[in-house]
Amino acid sequence: MYANLPDIYGVNRRNIMNFIVETSARHIHLTNEHIAILFGEGHALTNKKDLSQPGQFACEEKVELVGPKGSLKVSVLGPARKDTQVELSFTDARTLGLKDVPVRESGDIAGTPGIKLVGPCGEIELAEGCIIAMRHIHMTPEDAEAFGVKDKDVVKVAIEGTGRALVFEDVVVRVSKSYALAMHIDTDEANAAAAFGKIFGTIVK
Amino acid sequence: MYANLPDIYGVNRRNIMNFIVETSARHIHLTNEHIAILFGEGHALTNKKDLSQPGQFACEEKVELVGPKGSLKVSVLGPARKDTQVELSFTDARTLGLKDVPVRESGDIAGTPGIKLVGPCGEIELAEGCIIAMRHIHMTPEDAEAFGVKDKDVVKVAIEGTGRALVFEDVVVRVSKSYALAMHIDTDEANAAAAFGKIFGTIVK
Repeated sequence: MYANLPDIYGVNRRNIMNFIVETSARHIHLTNEHIAILFGEGHALTNKKDLSQPGQFACEEKVELVGPKGSLKVSVLGPARKDTQVELSFTDARTLGLKDVPVRESGDIAGTPGIKLVGPCGEIELAEGCIIAMRHIHMTPEDAEAFGVKDKDVVKVAIEGTGRALVFEDVVVRVSKSYALAMHIDTDEANAAAAFGKIFGTIVK
Repeated sequence: MYANLPDIYGVNRRNIMNFIVETSARHIHLTNEHIAILFGEGHALTNKKDLSQPGQFACEEKVELVGPKGSLKVSVLGPARKDTQVELSFTDARTLGLKDVPVRESGDIAGTPGIKLVGPCGEIELAEGCIIAMRHIHMTPEDAEAFGVKDKDVVKVAIEGTGRALVFEDVVVRVSKSYALAMHIDTDEANAAAAFGKIFGTIVK
């Protein structure tokens, strides 16, 4: 973190603070109960790759989402959660034929569309749980203090130098001791910003 | 246009000027020669729907794009042009398996990837012509004067009130007497801004 940097640039210190911008492709979080139905009783998720957020990992396991119009394979992200949640882009929702998938914060799934999940050992008619994740920045309390923001703040983030520069508004700040500093956008958002590879964002006023 | 409005808002007049933001789904422009190969000698394109730009229209005709990884149907836009040009989103390019499709202004196709085109009467191995269109605003010389911009200017455009507000940078201004005032973005960009339905943009500093 840059919190203790001298202001050698002669500008507001926040202007020189940035963070990695990561693209979240469509994925699913599963409950233990749903892991057992889809992959078999007693099945444990297989860590394929650790993600930037401590303790979170992409799994070898995949689930097929079967919508009214089409189907898509998605990676499972571990560990198990208390609710099963499918995170899509608007492009994915259209491919599946799902209407009215809302832009929501992770965990806020009440009243969202469901979908059929197909695994190697079973199927589930998920009643609700499909969201388009609201773009967000994970940060620790120390990061939040350094950036001058707090949990649930909605900020603007500039992505520069990609040839498709833009300023994302409606970016929610999520603060927890268990997080690491990173912004998450979906594949549509990454495409709109040409945010491919190692891209950094900056909070702007 | 608002060029002659009194400044009743007490603000820079440009702040109250806006324009419709239209989403261009993937499509293809064809030369007369290519229309003849794909749809048959002497075939005339069928106007399905007039577009916002005077004289431009979506056609009943569709062409299949066959890439290294997948294929997609695209609508033909008429009338015929001097070069065949395929306009994709990054999502489409990935679906097709096309790498290094550049973000370019319409017409600037030198050195861009080609693709196989399949129509009901024939096929073409297009040597070049696939671009991701640079986001742009069509306007007349009168509009340009009112906005205080000129042809080829690169501006910033704010999209507000969608729940996914953002400011698109790297937006090119295109001025011609034959244009009508409208901004064009691709489907990825529309998704990133949740710019669905009748959405307006504003040039911001």
